[in-house]
Amino acid sequence: MKILTLLSDFGIKSSYVAQMKSVALNITDAKIVDITHNISPHNIFEGAFILKTTIPSFPNGTVHVAVVDPGVGTNRRGIVIAAKTQILVGPDNGLLIPAAETLGTFQVYEIKNEKLMMKNISNTFHGRDIFIPVAAHILNGVYFNEIGPEIFDYKKLDLGKSTIKDKTAEGEVLYVDEFGNIVTNIEGSKLRQYLDFKKDILIYLDKKQMRVSFVKTYGEQKKNETLATIGSSNLFEISVNQGNAAVKYKAKIGDKIKILY
Amino acid sequence: MKILTLLSDFGIKSSYVAQMKSVALNITDAKIVDITHNISPHNIFEGAFILKTTIPSFPNGTVHVAVVDPGVGTNRRGIVIAAKTQILVGPDNGLLIPAAETLGTFQVYEIKNEKLMMKNISNTFHGRDIFIPVAAHILNGVYFNEIGPEIFDYKKLDLGKSTIKDKTAEGEVLYVDEFGNIVTNIEGSKLRQYLDFKKDILIYLDKKQMRVSFVKTYGEQKKNETLATIGSSNLFEISVNQGNAAVKYKAKIGDKIKILY
Amino acid sequence: MKILTLLSDFGIKSSYVAQMKSVALNITDAKIVDITHNISPHNIFEGAFILKTTIPSFPNGTVHVAVVDPGVGTNRRGIVIAAKTQILVGPDNGLLIPAAETLGTFQVYEIKNEKLMMKNISNTFHGRDIFIPVAAHILNGVYFNEIGPEIFDYKKLDLGKSTIKDKTAEGEVLYVDEFGNIVTNIEGSKLRQYLDFKKDILIYLDKKQMRVSFVKTYGEQKKNETLATIGSSNLFEISVNQGNAAVKYKAKIGDKIKILY
Repeated sequence: MKILTLLSDFGIKSSYVAQMKSVALNITDAKIVDITHNISPHNIFEGAFILKTTIPSFPNGTVHVAVVDPGVGTNRRGIVIAAKTQILVGPDNGLLIPAAETLGTFQVYEIKNEKLMMKNISNTFHGRDIFIPVAAHILNGVYFNEIGPEIFDYKKLDLGKSTIKDKTAEGEVLYVDEFGNIVTNIEGSKLRQYLDFKKDILIYLDKKQMRVSFVKTYGEQKKNETLATIGSSNLFEISVNQGNAAVKYKAKIGDKIKILY
Repeated sequence: MKILTLLSDFGIKSSYVAQMKSVALNITDAKIVDITHNISPHNIFEGAFILKTTIPSFPNGTVHVAVVDPGVGTNRRGIVIAAKTQILVGPDNGLLIPAAETLGTFQVYEIKNEKLMMKNISNTFHGRDIFIPVAAHILNGVYFNEIGPEIFDYKKLDLGKSTIKDKTAEGEVLYVDEFGNIVTNIEGSKLRQYLDFKKDILIYLDKKQMRVSFVKTYGEQKKNETLATIGSSNLFEISVNQGNAAVKYKAKIGDKIKILY
Repeated sequence: MKILTLLSDFGIKSSYVAQMKSVALNITDAKIVDITHNISPHNIFEGAFILKTTIPSFPNGTVHVAVVDPGVGTNRRGIVIAAKTQILVGPDNGLLIPAAETLGTFQVYEIKNEKLMMKNISNTFHGRDIFIPVAAHILNGVYFNEIGPEIFDYKKLDLGKSTIKDKTAEGEVLYVDEFGNIVTNIEGSKLRQYLDFKKDILIYLDKKQMRVSFVKTYGEQKKNETLATIGSSNLFEISVNQGNAAVKYKAKIGDKIKILY
């Protein structure tokens, strides 16, 4: 089964996503899966985080096209990443790198072969005119060395450092989901080596502080009470049971967090 | 043709829905159809209403996974419902019951067989780690008795009572759609036994009252005028032609309604 | 490969779209692609623009169902358009016409054959009860003359005139996308005959005026600066690099625009 996924900041009101799909359908009969098209406009960091946490569970051979691309039409390059077991296609602006790293070692190819692109290429929509046809041709069996030269100076992206020690952990907010869960870059399984569930911890988030219970899941706290847990991507998160933690604590991507336990 | 549908309160900004699909695609090549992922967060009642009104028209054998699950990771059980002609998978919190009842008699099985789940199960995302793989295995032919024991003490859910008599009907607001149509639990075909189209009726909605025409469809009233009709789910609804009735009358789910005719 | 697309103003919170898909799945195994369901409620003009700019890139034989239908259930007719290479199904209110014209010559058939519709037809949801089953049967090979009589008095729709001359061009705003790009009906390739990239131009938009650079793509301007470019649908547009031009200039569909160069 061939699978093509799409991630973008195009939203769902316009038809940019459908235009990408129409091009794909001319070349391949792959199943098309939307990861999300509601990345905040031009937010490469947010797109990179979502891509990284989402693609590991896709079947081997899946091809992912990701388009958060403020530099479209300028001299920023287009790339294909042959990652371990899966393939990524998109702009050379860091968006694809954390996802590729999560899968293991990888090679990066610059997209140069015009035969794999649309005949008329707009200056403002390479997702439709370059990335999708290249991805669809890869699903059809085009070899990586037909795409263009391997490159090594691709743009990197760092999703922020975190440190986890005996009595303290530090990191930052990576994401806020639609429930208002505040997702950090502090790795859950590592934190669990120092911290047991059911314990109270002290959290400094930006300029706010709070004492909360570290629990296995939301429902272990009363409705509308704050809690800390390890979310489904194995990351430490702050939540309010059936409420919105991000609104309550005015949290945003990039906020510093410190935990004492 | 195998069909898997998804309903949740996950929204479309995060990638939780895509994560569920990625797990399904590892097990089955079923067509995946989104019912909606914009149920109001944690609103089991709203999810149950949408599921109930949507699934009857799906082909026989369709498997529906529904996740509005504030109790995820606690001792609330996961269930599979073998309903007449279709199958439902989700939490044992009432969400699936009105839909199952709409289809006729049904059996409920508790999900116990760990072989049908993901190897690593998070405490906060059973949609991805339990419900989807169980549903996908059912689409592959797993028998109901392999899932776990049949149970009879599953949690029920009541979408509210309505009464329809000679000159009056009473009920409550079940749903407000994106056009602002106010959908009630008063059954249209039953109401039509007492009430003809083109008649004026008196409506009490919460503390508001209005005299409106009961008509076949929106366009029989002038633009921006209020009307009452029978919607596409055979339910009595209050609408404004090309306007938003819910905003105009500040209607919300649970509001009491009384009609005099 | 059979393809069925859907466009509507139903939004994604309710399950109207899923109800349409459920009906289609009972008749055809075509791939179903959403164009968008977030057309502004009842806005036929906006729906027509999106349909026109989106369908040309779909494969030959694709069947498009479009439902922006304030007149549903009244005496407005349902139609099938056999356009050059593709087929359109929806209400006879102008919605389908600009798209059909883009593809070349076409015939219009009134939907009359009840055998191609659902057995029970609601007065408020012909998308589900008439247009989808008709489209699915067409994908299965039903001939156009089985649908109903060819008609010639179908409702037309005009997306506005534009004029492009030696030193000036005039037109109007057709659309505002989710990035806030202001899309006009001034054709890009025609404008390029008179105007080179990298030139400064003077724009009058409604009552605002601005002097901006006409460039190939967004990234040629500094962040948050206004620019003019030719968008991916070959239409002149006003944008702010990584910002929102529509918010900045309070632009809306129908605003008059004049360019001096």
